[in-house]
Amino acid sequence: MKKSEDNKVVPIFKHDNSAIIEKVSDSFDFQRGGHLDEVSMAYETWGTLNKNKSNVIVIFTGLSASSHVTSSEHNNSAGWWESMVGEGRPIDTTHNYVICINTLGSCFGSTSPVSINKKTGKPYRLAFPELTVEDMSKASNLLLNKLDIKRIKLLIGPSLGGMNAIAFAVLYNKVVENILLISTATQASPYAIAIRSLQREIIRKDPLWNNGFYSYEKPPLNGVRIARKIGMTSYRSALEWSQRFGRKKTSNAELNQNTFGVDNTSFEYEIEAYLEHQAIKFQNVFDANCYLYLSRAMDWFDIALHGKSTLDALSKTKLERALVLGVTSDTLFPLQQQKEIAEGLSQAGAKVQYKELNCIQGHDSFLVDIETFGLEINNFISNL
Amino acid sequence: MKKSEDNKVVPIFKHDNSAIIEKVSDSFDFQRGGHLDEVSMAYETWGTLNKNKSNVIVIFTGLSASSHVTSSEHNNSAGWWESMVGEGRPIDTTHNYVICINTLGSCFGSTSPVSINKKTGKPYRLAFPELTVEDMSKASNLLLNKLDIKRIKLLIGPSLGGMNAIAFAVLYNKVVENILLISTATQASPYAIAIRSLQREIIRKDPLWNNGFYSYEKPPLNGVRIARKIGMTSYRSALEWSQRFGRKKTSNAELNQNTFGVDNTSFEYEIEAYLEHQAIKFQNVFDANCYLYLSRAMDWFDIALHGKSTLDALSKTKLERALVLGVTSDTLFPLQQQKEIAEGLSQAGAKVQYKELNCIQGHDSFLVDIETFGLEINNFISNL
Repeated sequence: MKKSEDNKVVPIFKHDNSAIIEKVSDSFDFQRGGHLDEVSMAYETWGTLNKNKSNVIVIFTGLSASSHVTSSEHNNSAGWWESMVGEGRPIDTTHNYVICINTLGSCFGSTSPVSINKKTGKPYRLAFPELTVEDMSKASNLLLNKLDIKRIKLLIGPSLGGMNAIAFAVLYNKVVENILLISTATQASPYAIAIRSLQREIIRKDPLWNNGFYSYEKPPLNGVRIARKIGMTSYRSALEWSQRFGRKKTSNAELNQNTFGVDNTSFEYEIEAYLEHQAIKFQNVFDANCYLYLSRAMDWFDIALHGKSTLDALSKTKLERALVLGVTSDTLFPLQQQKEIAEGLSQAGAKVQYKELNCIQGHDSFLVDIETFGLEINNFISNL
Repeated sequence: MKKSEDNKVVPIFKHDNSAIIEKVSDSFDFQRGGHLDEVSMAYETWGTLNKNKSNVIVIFTGLSASSHVTSSEHNNSAGWWESMVGEGRPIDTTHNYVICINTLGSCFGSTSPVSINKKTGKPYRLAFPELTVEDMSKASNLLLNKLDIKRIKLLIGPSLGGMNAIAFAVLYNKVVENILLISTATQASPYAIAIRSLQREIIRKDPLWNNGFYSYEKPPLNGVRIARKIGMTSYRSALEWSQRFGRKKTSNAELNQNTFGVDNTSFEYEIEAYLEHQAIKFQNVFDANCYLYLSRAMDWFDIALHGKSTLDALSKTKLERALVLGVTSDTLFPLQQQKEIAEGLSQAGAKVQYKELNCIQGHDSFLVDIETFGLEINNFISNL
């Protein structure tokens, strides 16, 4: 399980230095056609696998996250769900063995458009095969096989990670015992497709994108940054921003309020400066082509294609228990979609708990309102 | 009231050919500083002004609309609110004299960044002074003075038109008797600022925008088109799109689903094709610089600046009756903002009717669900 030198990624998109990279296949066929001679997956683990391997919790991530879900002895930087995962935290690593898997196609270590094609010695870029959520599930399952893990006590997935988890629970139904799904969907809605389609168009229309052949030293930062801002308007909520920012101005508001110039290093309103700050953080770590692939995979996702209907497809799952968490202020993955998941899994025979959480941070609430989510998750895990 | 030759606009942004253009000032000071030696306003009228001029209904428009609210004997093309205004329609022109005014700063005939600066013989572009909603109100009031209209029986404003109407009712409180406000706000919310800030950034980042000095033959169409698409995701609703488009694919979906190429003349999902179609219509008629000015004016709007608070500012209105219409699915101008308007006008002494309409088309519902809106508007006007 040492880091594979074969899976070099372009320097600016370094995976977290604590991720383990494991070659999982030397012949990977993608669902929509296309093939790679080698697929590797990046992951991290916390806690200790028990003797009968019955304490495995697997976390699939949202579109933009790495496998670094929480800090560890190897990497003490805070993870993307730091307060949720760890010893004594809701997803407790004291007795559980937690594995967080970086999604196939993500630029944080798993094989992706920034990985080097050994045949050419260059990154795949758009020669990377068309990617689906099912491909992500398949690659994750190959990793678990490699790690000789046959059963998952609990599979956790928020957002894209939830789509991945739903696909996994249908495709590898004997592997998953229990599931925790957060703000996700059995298929992409037209509203979510519209938002993502726009984000991709903005990246493609950045002249620096150059049909995918951008310089990694000078990537299409404008496109990625603006796409991220659009994402944020759909990830958070109007109510949160009204309470948090209102009409507050930045300290340099007077200087900058009048210009329509191309320079936007500063902004008049705090909400504008906040979006810029968050989006710059993202533009500097996320690869544009990877973003396009992961985004389109979400649009294509429709679990109903695995049966006669969504219900029929979900009937293939063999889950004991499921916790389905939705958020009232989530406009991107609205409550209706969470209800459909809960009803579908219930009809499939699982014992389902469905909760509508009254958080104000929209789709991102699971990352922010740790208290509310932690309580529900802790209760659920304690009773498994 | 003949068309002024002095107010030539750049050919591609022709105003509706039925609009009358009237010079309203030869010395116009803008609220934030800045000055123009000449301001003209474009408008259209329907019906006949009665002897004592007591039958005047004035309509202020949303950001993207012209003065052509409905067809007329001079221009039989359908207006932007065709089914709402006309003989026998909810805003009945049989006995009322309806004036629809094109907003100052809009490219449809009123003085704007595409108007020719007589001193230079060239369009103002970004030399146009910073524009506020209050400037729009002031220019509209000057037009009414010019037309010798001292009293407005009913002032109507949806969206930006509603902000304009609120400002007008505060600034020229002796002119307005009754008001009809639709999906608008007493001040811009941070969520709405975020959306508009993004739209402007996308236009500015289009290389063809060229700091405002684009060629009118080759304007920044990508920027304007994508900005419009972002607008549409905030103008409509996820529920409407789920019902209307679902996951339907376009007929050429198979051809185009795989590409991340720069060409997006066709799309895989119907929702994508719909957005593209609507946005192309817009990009071909709306000027980029005008869009920037009107958009920023909305962010700056805060009626509270005309008093110690929103309530204090609204207390300056002298309205008899008000109808305030909000839509449950409107995320851009949510119900909370409509309630605030209704309560403020009520405390100011107006007899206020406030209705939350259960339309699914979001902010744009007033343009689409004519049956629901028409009923409310007709009832209100009939009792004036």
